Amino acid sequence: MRALAREWHVAGETIGLVPTMGALHAGHMSLVAVARAETSRVVVSIFVNPLQFGAGEDFERYPRPVESDLAMLREARVDAVYMPDQATLYPPDLSTRVQVGGPTETLEGVQRPGHFEGVATVVTKLFWATHADRAYFGQKDAQQVAVVKRLAADLDSGVEVRGCPTIRDADGLAVSSRNAYLSPAERAAALSLSGSLRTAAKMYAAGERDAGRLRARIQEVLAAEPLVRIDYADLVDPSTFRPPGTLAVLAVRIGKTRLIDNHDVSKPFLADRNS
Amino acid sequence: MRALAREWHVAGETIGLVPTMGALHAGHMSLVAVARAETSRVVVSIFVNPLQFGAGEDFERYPRPVESDLAMLREARVDAVYMPDQATLYPPDLSTRVQVGGPTETLEGVQRPGHFEGVATVVTKLFWATHADRAYFGQKDAQQVAVVKRLAADLDSGVEVRGCPTIRDADGLAVSSRNAYLSPAERAAALSLSGSLRTAAKMYAAGERDAGRLRARIQEVLAAEPLVRIDYADLVDPSTFRPPGTLAVLAVRIGKTRLIDNHDVSKPFLADRNS
Repeated sequence: MRALAREWHVAGETIGLVPTMGALHAGHMSLVAVARAETSRVVVSIFVNPLQFGAGEDFERYPRPVESDLAMLREARVDAVYMPDQATLYPPDLSTRVQVGGPTETLEGVQRPGHFEGVATVVTKLFWATHADRAYFGQKDAQQVAVVKRLAADLDSGVEVRGCPTIRDADGLAVSSRNAYLSPAERAAALSLSGSLRTAAKMYAAGERDAGRLRARIQEVLAAEPLVRIDYADLVDPSTFRPPGTLAVLAVRIGKTRLIDNHDVSKPFLADRNS
Repeated sequence: MRALAREWHVAGETIGLVPTMGALHAGHMSLVAVARAETSRVVVSIFVNPLQFGAGEDFERYPRPVESDLAMLREARVDAVYMPDQATLYPPDLSTRVQVGGPTETLEGVQRPGHFEGVATVVTKLFWATHADRAYFGQKDAQQVAVVKRLAADLDSGVEVRGCPTIRDADGLAVSSRNAYLSPAERAAALSLSGSLRTAAKMYAAGERDAGRLRARIQEVLAAEPLVRIDYADLVDPSTFRPPGTLAVLAVRIGKTRLIDNHDVSKPFLADRNS
């Protein structure tokens, strides 16, 4: 991978990296499309990173449909797929970790101890191995975008980190590899996530600026759905992930599945914008 | 720096980085000479890194003879000097740290908490900012070499880390920017460091293989010098920095100055090899 990337740089090309854990969906493919438009060579990495899964999380059952992933990437004519195995990325004597403070200290960082350290470590490795000039992440994982931007700047990586819009199904559900875990009833319940964000955006558009009332309304919409247990629902700044701010972020559990979503309530909700 | 490095790579050049804290001496210049021989572009960084100094250490009084440093580098015809200021390398919102396990867990890592985290963080930044292909470090800081090698491999940096031989004054004292702190009497006492390593190498050459006896003899030579207080003296493996091994490593305090030295006792001591 490194030799190829080096060749490309010598040829004056720019390299766009789309880091993924596979199980590709329309969200990933939208990142590929943006990378395609902005850089001359597009690399997609596929690696289910054990370091970013906590004990009891879904590392083992995380979907790994390698053949269909590769078919989608062939179809999209990406220039390279970087698919290292565990032993390559984490040899037994590896002992280095990248720790980001700031935006890792709240919400997902509290709920999933070690998660962002795992993300930061693997992202550093992927950035370096692919000689990426730009890297593309989905805004669905908004806190991850903030952490990776912080990391890329702090370590003088020179990598421009782009957070790209969340892709949603027609009914508003943010696409996610983990949606595959949902039963039909659970999927119906999951619409309360985008529903609560849409409601908050409408309140904001109607003049509501009180974060407490916006948060309460979001929690109310979520709580109305018996299958949903709220991990958190808050309004934060998109860089620091602390209040005050207009980015509504939420995490819930539905059955055994944990889902997250977010939306800047000061802007129209996507599904409404499209209609 | 990054733009220049990128230009060089596009032109097919290779970049050798010599990271320093300035106060350049023959040791640094030997690294420049090796880099010159092995790469087509040589970058020397000068940055007194606050992150690798502990509380009560000599960050404030560390020598900063910038003009004479630059004159030496001009004389050596290096291609670039990278001399970022504190605000560039550590803006107030920087919150990322690189932590290396393994070789950081003993000796210097124990004596100087946070030291190797500071080294690892700044080295990661310098590697990235200069797009280094190779980086040159003095073997005098043997544990630092082990840590940086571990880091470079663990983060898939692609940077080849080279540990280069310790340069010594004619009487055996390892050259160090901190030697400037020594009074004449202290400098005379400091010869016990190289003296103890020479003695151990001679014992090894004469057939002694018992680490306990080699270590005891090193400590005896150091203890014979009233101005010297021993921080540690041990025999370790050069990668893990744990016993067993033939790398004799030592740290002492003489007055307010802390000095380190090391030698692989299975090999002839340099001054004896030259005689």
